[in-house]
Amino acid sequence: MNSSLNPQRTVAELKELRALTSDADGAQRVAFTPLWVKTRAWLLEKLAGLPVETHTDAAGNFWATLRGESEKSLLIGGHMDSVPNGGWLDGCLNVMAGVEILRRIHSQFHGKPPITIRLVDWADEEGARFGKSLFGSSACSGLLDMNEARGLMDKQGITLPDALKNVGVDFEHVQAAGVELKNAAAYLELHIEQGPVLLDLDLPLGAVLGTFGVERHAITFHGQAAHSGSTPMNRRKDAFLAAAKMSSEIYEIAARSGNGVCTIGSCTTKPGIVTSVVEECRITLDQRHLDSAKLATMLAEAKSASEIFAREGNVKVSWERIWQIAPRPFNDELIALCDEAIRETCGQVHRLPSGPLHDAAEVAAAGVPTVMMFVQSLHGISHNKIEDTKEEHLELCVTAFDKLAEKTMRWIQSH
Amino acid sequence: MNSSLNPQRTVAELKELRALTSDADGAQRVAFTPLWVKTRAWLLEKLAGLPVETHTDAAGNFWATLRGESEKSLLIGGHMDSVPNGGWLDGCLNVMAGVEILRRIHSQFHGKPPITIRLVDWADEEGARFGKSLFGSSACSGLLDMNEARGLMDKQGITLPDALKNVGVDFEHVQAAGVELKNAAAYLELHIEQGPVLLDLDLPLGAVLGTFGVERHAITFHGQAAHSGSTPMNRRKDAFLAAAKMSSEIYEIAARSGNGVCTIGSCTTKPGIVTSVVEECRITLDQRHLDSAKLATMLAEAKSASEIFAREGNVKVSWERIWQIAPRPFNDELIALCDEAIRETCGQVHRLPSGPLHDAAEVAAAGVPTVMMFVQSLHGISHNKIEDTKEEHLELCVTAFDKLAEKTMRWIQSH
Repeated sequence: MNSSLNPQRTVAELKELRALTSDADGAQRVAFTPLWVKTRAWLLEKLAGLPVETHTDAAGNFWATLRGESEKSLLIGGHMDSVPNGGWLDGCLNVMAGVEILRRIHSQFHGKPPITIRLVDWADEEGARFGKSLFGSSACSGLLDMNEARGLMDKQGITLPDALKNVGVDFEHVQAAGVELKNAAAYLELHIEQGPVLLDLDLPLGAVLGTFGVERHAITFHGQAAHSGSTPMNRRKDAFLAAAKMSSEIYEIAARSGNGVCTIGSCTTKPGIVTSVVEECRITLDQRHLDSAKLATMLAEAKSASEIFAREGNVKVSWERIWQIAPRPFNDELIALCDEAIRETCGQVHRLPSGPLHDAAEVAAAGVPTVMMFVQSLHGISHNKIEDTKEEHLELCVTAFDKLAEKTMRWIQSH
Repeated sequence: MNSSLNPQRTVAELKELRALTSDADGAQRVAFTPLWVKTRAWLLEKLAGLPVETHTDAAGNFWATLRGESEKSLLIGGHMDSVPNGGWLDGCLNVMAGVEILRRIHSQFHGKPPITIRLVDWADEEGARFGKSLFGSSACSGLLDMNEARGLMDKQGITLPDALKNVGVDFEHVQAAGVELKNAAAYLELHIEQGPVLLDLDLPLGAVLGTFGVERHAITFHGQAAHSGSTPMNRRKDAFLAAAKMSSEIYEIAARSGNGVCTIGSCTTKPGIVTSVVEECRITLDQRHLDSAKLATMLAEAKSASEIFAREGNVKVSWERIWQIAPRPFNDELIALCDEAIRETCGQVHRLPSGPLHDAAEVAAAGVPTVMMFVQSLHGISHNKIEDTKEEHLELCVTAFDKLAEKTMRWIQSH
């Protein structure tokens, strides 16, 4: 069985990693910590039997390169770091499936595949410590905001540049990691879904269309406080009434958009006492769509609705942008190959957008043809120790992801 | 002019009181404080020229009695205490108008009116210090919850019984004040409206139908937290969506009820972060109506709506009562007299319920025929230093209230 893929081995290695890096609360492989350094040493051991060149780039990303006949490279990525109290699969499933694929390719081509195959373990995908995700991949893509990142600080007051220095990375030169993408012809990433879509459809695997663009705003309605007993209903300037109307409205906006999602995640009221009409009501709105035009439409519709509700209720409304990011659609041809690989492995496939961001979004933004594959999440829950996937699905995903790698190698050769 | 009413004098006395008991932040006549004791001494001075018997009852209420031919008594009430940073009229307008009426009656009947006239300054109407309003009047009506009141504590940790001891009142015997109502044939109270109804109608005075009954609840919707990016809209158990639907609904419930009011004064969300569907949403609902059956209907309709919204949104809902009080409708014949008195004074009258509670509600509950008269509030605002009423309206209200006293005396005599 030396020349064939062994998905059971991947599952066994993931369990070994879990035993090494988790406690009763879950995985603790937070980026730039001693346990993360230990995790990387463990990964290096797993690669020991392969003729790969390994190095850490200017941004702290770890690369293992299996040189081929051509410099054109197929990149397979993931991240060994986790959030504190994280799940056992988020990020490391991707890397360990990549290790198994490297083994299969090495074995099949007797060490010299037609193109170069590179496995990357991105640094600090989660951003758990400094509040900013996709550090390593955004440094590599050139999209990292250096001024913002320079000022990031953890709860202990340690800055990101100081934390990086501790693991041998010079913050001011992290963007030199961009050179790693020089010959990149395609980028593949496997990931646990982190949502319930495949679970609901009872499907093990899905082809990912891209990562959602996000518009995130705080919306504040300004009314007038008034006594709950002495103020007639038609005299009120009720900030909560106007804000509350947004709640049903965003479901309609999302429905009209096709595949978008909208969420009001928080609502605060002032003065916020039982005997007063609400003077000020602040809600947060998170809107996501794969299509930037549709995302812009969703935002415009929400703004327009908020103004109508404000007028109806004789209150004022103001908007404040919290954050935004553009959609990152994946490569159509690679999506089709991903589709094929899944269909060949388990008969049925579903295409879905990714709500959460992934390193793949950064690589796609840098112009590298990219696709992701999702495997079903048992509870639809991630960033939690209960995160899980059936073992049979884990094995299926390694098989399907390997098929995708094979198809993508041929696709690169044919270009 | 010795035998006639002098409303300008009332306005002048109110200004004198304001100068004596206010600072830059407003009136500071908080019950049981040294300034409140000083206020009562000032009130006693104002009564010095009248042949009234004065005493403080078992609950700390101050009484001035002008004995008449009959022991049957007409009671005129108010309260000299204010909230901290209060307005210049709330409570003391009532008392000072009563002083002026005592002067007019004394003068007209040469010291011996046909029935007894009694002025009462209730103790701690506001409840500002111990969080429980209508202390003196509820002790007198017999409706004070002794067990609850015994445990009340101010911010300094001083209990109500100890604060009362400081002003010579024995908490355990406060209900002996009930004897004061023995010969009470009617109770009249004038008050600034504390709402915008008369202001909106551009009317100086209104006849009050009674005080609202109140149902006050916390309503909690229990959904499920879920990632804002990865959770499809139709998979959500959005507690905010269900809670927000209550906001428009209560306006319809209030409209159907006729004259009721409903207020959602606060909304809190958990986890309350921008990237998660709301798991738990708690709102407070305050409902008020003059008719207890209609109040019960409003409550039942709100409960039923909350259950429908919970079902629609696949969430759960639970209710918790915060507080309730029954409506206290005033006496129909006295309302008619109040109406007449106002019409004779300024041509036009409006009948309205009182949203806030007043001492009159306690007296009415004790079975004494009761009515209140409201005078327009300039900003519809009370419990604030900007509370105000036009001087011409203050004079009109003293005149109309005196006419009401006159009519009520005749009404008592005819019974």
